[in-house]
Amino acid sequence: MALLAEYLDSVKTVVDATLDSLIPTEADEPRNLHSAIRWSVFAGGKRVRPAIVIGVGEVLGAARADLLATSAAIEMVHTYSLIHDDLPSMDNDDLRRGKATCHRQFGEATAILAGDVLQTLAFKAIAEDVRLTAECRIWIISQLATASGTPAGMASGQQLDLNAEGKGTSIEELERIHRHKTGALISAAASAGAAIAAASGSDVEAVDRYAAKLGLLFQITDDLLDITQETKELGKTAGKDANALKATYPAHFGVAKTRELAAMIRDEAIAAISPLGTNTDILEALADFIVERTN
Amino acid sequence: MALLAEYLDSVKTVVDATLDSLIPTEADEPRNLHSAIRWSVFAGGKRVRPAIVIGVGEVLGAARADLLATSAAIEMVHTYSLIHDDLPSMDNDDLRRGKATCHRQFGEATAILAGDVLQTLAFKAIAEDVRLTAECRIWIISQLATASGTPAGMASGQQLDLNAEGKGTSIEELERIHRHKTGALISAAASAGAAIAAASGSDVEAVDRYAAKLGLLFQITDDLLDITQETKELGKTAGKDANALKATYPAHFGVAKTRELAAMIRDEAIAAISPLGTNTDILEALADFIVERTN
Repeated sequence: MALLAEYLDSVKTVVDATLDSLIPTEADEPRNLHSAIRWSVFAGGKRVRPAIVIGVGEVLGAARADLLATSAAIEMVHTYSLIHDDLPSMDNDDLRRGKATCHRQFGEATAILAGDVLQTLAFKAIAEDVRLTAECRIWIISQLATASGTPAGMASGQQLDLNAEGKGTSIEELERIHRHKTGALISAAASAGAAIAAASGSDVEAVDRYAAKLGLLFQITDDLLDITQETKELGKTAGKDANALKATYPAHFGVAKTRELAAMIRDEAIAAISPLGTNTDILEALADFIVERTN
Repeated sequence: MALLAEYLDSVKTVVDATLDSLIPTEADEPRNLHSAIRWSVFAGGKRVRPAIVIGVGEVLGAARADLLATSAAIEMVHTYSLIHDDLPSMDNDDLRRGKATCHRQFGEATAILAGDVLQTLAFKAIAEDVRLTAECRIWIISQLATASGTPAGMASGQQLDLNAEGKGTSIEELERIHRHKTGALISAAASAGAAIAAASGSDVEAVDRYAAKLGLLFQITDDLLDITQETKELGKTAGKDANALKATYPAHFGVAKTRELAAMIRDEAIAAISPLGTNTDILEALADFIVERTN
């Protein structure tokens, strides 16, 4: 994990610099809008999705510089979804990464607009990334839009999740919600890395299988953290899922069995990338990091 | 105007069919999300922005079929902005085009998500439009993102507008708000039409000047309608701008002088397109339509 800690640090440094260059400054009008965007984007996110883009891309031979705009774009889409999901009419959360949520700090209207324009800036960043061919940019935009939109993407996952609140949810429905809400964007991150590396068909398939496992792992550990961690450690309000009668893995299987499930899926993720060769330490470490994270 | 009525009808028919093909059906899960999107997209919009894409594109020699996905995408961005602007924390409106606003009909969370995914679907539609070259798609996505985002686009215009509520606003600030909030997207529509037609530099400049005037005209007449029309005719709550102490042209100049200003800007719009030749009837009629509309 020392290897990964260093890797994540180096990713965070370059991705944060890229985000800083792509987002208007707090001195640009409208200042409250740009302050709100920066409040949420630079709130201490771990940059897991950029690490997936960069990890997959570098393992498959891409230059890091070619992966930065896409990494930043996917992090912007992720941050837009957090801002909107936290809104009073959605999950109504006051805390995110240990800080006030965007709408608590800047008001609801500005938080909605901040999420809106983060999505816009994400597509703009990819469209204007002159390091990639026009065809590659088009492909990534199409994939990212599919993964973050509807009917098979993040936003429809959030709607399915809201629709399921307070209702009994089958394990199939639960997996469907997770695959849309969290898995699709993680898969898009991995696919984008592979596309920028111009990976071969069999490598792309291996990456897709790995990413599908990673997405599931991410949501399962998120569910576990919600009930096993305190609010202070988690940086967001703990116990919210259970209070909202939300569909979660621990609610279905209990904590112990959910931990076993996570370990099994971690092994499947690592097995998926064995066809890529021996240079996959970072991708294995990323799977371990997702299992072992504490917030 | 008979010419234009027929033109707008034919545009509406093909654009609505394109929108229908690009948006998941109400039978696709999550059904409430897709119903909400379709509620707002098919609420009876006049498709002015698609008519600008298609009008400019056709005058400059593009095939209509090449203009449809982009037209639909720009209408989706426009509709996303209406859904979000109507929200309780923004303009808090109950009526839009004579129907309940999206959040009144489907709840606030679903309305926020409907707006979010309309933006996503817009960029997806352009990225996946195989009738255009990858370079053309990239260019349109970049322009549309600039026009609808921040710091110079629609979303920042909405923030500036919200920030100005209840305050004295100079005419310069008022024009800046309008240029961002309404003008940028209208200019993007015209530019996209010119790009798809592969227009020459001087034609592009003429179109840009025309579109800038059209955008201003649109907002001025919108301000006029807000105070001169009844709610029933307008299809949205009348008199809201004055009640909110919003910055408007009539508030600055009075109704009579604002009408004179609109007539002057209409003439400037038409003068701007004279370099395009004699085949510009539709573009002239569009300017007249914007001045003479009643809702």
